[in-house]
Amino acid sequence: MKDKTSCQRQDDADRLRGLRDQFQLNDGEIYLDGNSLGVLPRATAARVQQTVAQEWGQGLIRSWNDAGWIDLPQRLGDKIARLVGAARGELVVADSTSVNLYKVMSAALGLVAADAPGRTRPGRTRILSERSNFPTDLYIAEGLARQHGMTLELLEPDEIPDQLDDRVAVLMLTHVNYRTGRMHDMAALTRAAHDVGALAVWDLAHSAGAVPVDLNGAGADFAVGCGYKYLNGGPGAPAFVWAHARHADRMHQPLSGWMGHAAPFQFTPDYQPAPGIDRYLCGTPALLSMTALECGIDSVLAAEPLGGMQALREKSIALTGLFIELVEERCAGHGLTLVSPRDPALRGSQVCFAREEGAYAIVQALIERGVIGDFRAPDVLRFGFTPLYTRYADVWEAVERLHQVLAEGLWREARFQRLAAVT
Amino acid sequence: MKDKTSCQRQDDADRLRGLRDQFQLNDGEIYLDGNSLGVLPRATAARVQQTVAQEWGQGLIRSWNDAGWIDLPQRLGDKIARLVGAARGELVVADSTSVNLYKVMSAALGLVAADAPGRTRPGRTRILSERSNFPTDLYIAEGLARQHGMTLELLEPDEIPDQLDDRVAVLMLTHVNYRTGRMHDMAALTRAAHDVGALAVWDLAHSAGAVPVDLNGAGADFAVGCGYKYLNGGPGAPAFVWAHARHADRMHQPLSGWMGHAAPFQFTPDYQPAPGIDRYLCGTPALLSMTALECGIDSVLAAEPLGGMQALREKSIALTGLFIELVEERCAGHGLTLVSPRDPALRGSQVCFAREEGAYAIVQALIERGVIGDFRAPDVLRFGFTPLYTRYADVWEAVERLHQVLAEGLWREARFQRLAAVT
Repeated sequence: MKDKTSCQRQDDADRLRGLRDQFQLNDGEIYLDGNSLGVLPRATAARVQQTVAQEWGQGLIRSWNDAGWIDLPQRLGDKIARLVGAARGELVVADSTSVNLYKVMSAALGLVAADAPGRTRPGRTRILSERSNFPTDLYIAEGLARQHGMTLELLEPDEIPDQLDDRVAVLMLTHVNYRTGRMHDMAALTRAAHDVGALAVWDLAHSAGAVPVDLNGAGADFAVGCGYKYLNGGPGAPAFVWAHARHADRMHQPLSGWMGHAAPFQFTPDYQPAPGIDRYLCGTPALLSMTALECGIDSVLAAEPLGGMQALREKSIALTGLFIELVEERCAGHGLTLVSPRDPALRGSQVCFAREEGAYAIVQALIERGVIGDFRAPDVLRFGFTPLYTRYADVWEAVERLHQVLAEGLWREARFQRLAAVT
Repeated sequence: MKDKTSCQRQDDADRLRGLRDQFQLNDGEIYLDGNSLGVLPRATAARVQQTVAQEWGQGLIRSWNDAGWIDLPQRLGDKIARLVGAARGELVVADSTSVNLYKVMSAALGLVAADAPGRTRPGRTRILSERSNFPTDLYIAEGLARQHGMTLELLEPDEIPDQLDDRVAVLMLTHVNYRTGRMHDMAALTRAAHDVGALAVWDLAHSAGAVPVDLNGAGADFAVGCGYKYLNGGPGAPAFVWAHARHADRMHQPLSGWMGHAAPFQFTPDYQPAPGIDRYLCGTPALLSMTALECGIDSVLAAEPLGGMQALREKSIALTGLFIELVEERCAGHGLTLVSPRDPALRGSQVCFAREEGAYAIVQALIERGVIGDFRAPDVLRFGFTPLYTRYADVWEAVERLHQVLAEGLWREARFQRLAAVT
């Protein structure tokens, strides 16, 4: 049985423990919400200040060249590529996850319509996704389905394989579910989609920087992802978008902005998409947010000499496993039910428990006591574990405070606040 | 005839001269490129640092409520509304100009299709715009025209009134042309469009913060605009989007992200658009860029007690008029031809000259001598005049250096650099 000392010993033996020094963390606070908004890397403040005061303030318009602003979408893209099994030049940073999803879903539907004799669009009218996928993904897909005269069908995870047939155009899934932390088998589901002639689109919002991803290894078709969660890019950091090289030059997307043009500075009146993934750029990127994102990505890449995503994954499994074990042991009898998969192979880097009564108030009471998790309607307590900065002793302490809140009924007094948490 | 002393006297008498103190400007440099990237307000660095270090670093996820992040799109929108003749609650900050143009053009085409008995879409197959409109506007419109089975027709400004007929769905124009500085009569062209049952969509990229705009007064249908030019919001600052209140609740846009949902934090699986303009939000906004933008907008609003946009406009006309006068007088015989309208009523806040030979090299030579303008293909020297910080003496000095570059042929030695200037 674990105790606090054994957790501290685990920290002492942790080869990744030095990575924590990269971040500015509040004293005494245990932050288990890096799956919603990653923490601030120490390097970021100075870097953003440099961009504001020198690059913008002094360099002004010259910084598009001199400070390399114009290359940021690709430079950051190449860095993220290393975390998700993509090759150089295949991934760019642009816009938001929602906007990028619109691009790739549009492209995927266009490819399906254009492709495969005997499999023309009239026969492919189904878009499949998961019922508890993150809402924005469903909203974007719903709109495109209507526009294309197709139907969006929402399934439970286990129903997906049986529902794949030759009327499916696109299977669109979030790799790790935002609510349950359940992780899909990307390779197997992509293969199953391809077997029926459908395309596979993946949202990596809760995967990039959290679990190893191998987009090319899985043969996925398109992917999008988020910069402000496990990539520590800062609030509303720009998102990313990837397409498999086999689709290059055929993957039309409708947000045909000038940054995605083959020659953006020639100002020609007609649109000629850039080769490859660059055509997924649209307008001028939000530069200050981009430079902050680079520091965040670098904070994850700092793990590369220590084993990279594989080493982070091992620690993540150990942290989430420890949390489950401790909660079930120390908070037994307090009505918490594990929502996330018990099998670590099916679990992302978060753990969720449901509780019939008071889930929201319990999260508030924990926050008042310095344990930052979040609540997801209707009854879920959600805790994200970022191996870059979370210690085993933090897990112990978080469960200690959770137990106190439950055992002493402290949540009945928690202040209620308007809730505006972001995915 | 003007001389340097008379220009300095004009500065001394300028009621707006104190506004210049708001900005961090390079010593000895004359920045005539605020129409591409506005300068850095002094307030911005501290504000961004506050957002990074305190709001993000310490407040973390709580700042969505505690620091008011969640309300920024509307709060900034209401401020911009004061500059463009819109009402509170009608305008939000979101995404990029290109992405917003896609939203409003989609909405406009949807309204036209749904509207007006006897005027159904099969009869309305024309989208009109200006041949030398900024390319991204044309690219976005071109894609949507193709998608809707319509044609995008590009006209010279003077041809527009005659081309408006009952086959036109949308007239989409940039109010002030990025290349020539020519300004359309928004009220007259909107009325002419409405007279034939078409809708009018306006891009205010070179207008917001530069010239008085009265969207409601003109009865315009939709508008978008840019945060990083005359609004001084910083490189790639988020853009804005407006719709007339008469379209509220009928103006569907396809980028149905969760931030535009009627209840974004209820995480319901189906999309229910927010009332009014809030449905034009899509994904999570780039917060660091948003806070910088607020400082930029405030730097323009600081003119309100001194007469606001009307006072800025008067100074802008005086500055651009002075520049034209001095160039034509002092650089006569050096092959420069005025591209911008001579009539100030038709001119935005910029002045362009064409030169058959060496336009690009001349701009480079000027930049080397501390006068920052820009080049627009194939032969245009472009100079923007921001009355918030440009002095009459700066205009004198800029023409002095231009004359020197031309008279001494200095441009023949100018360093050539890769050009990546942003609109």
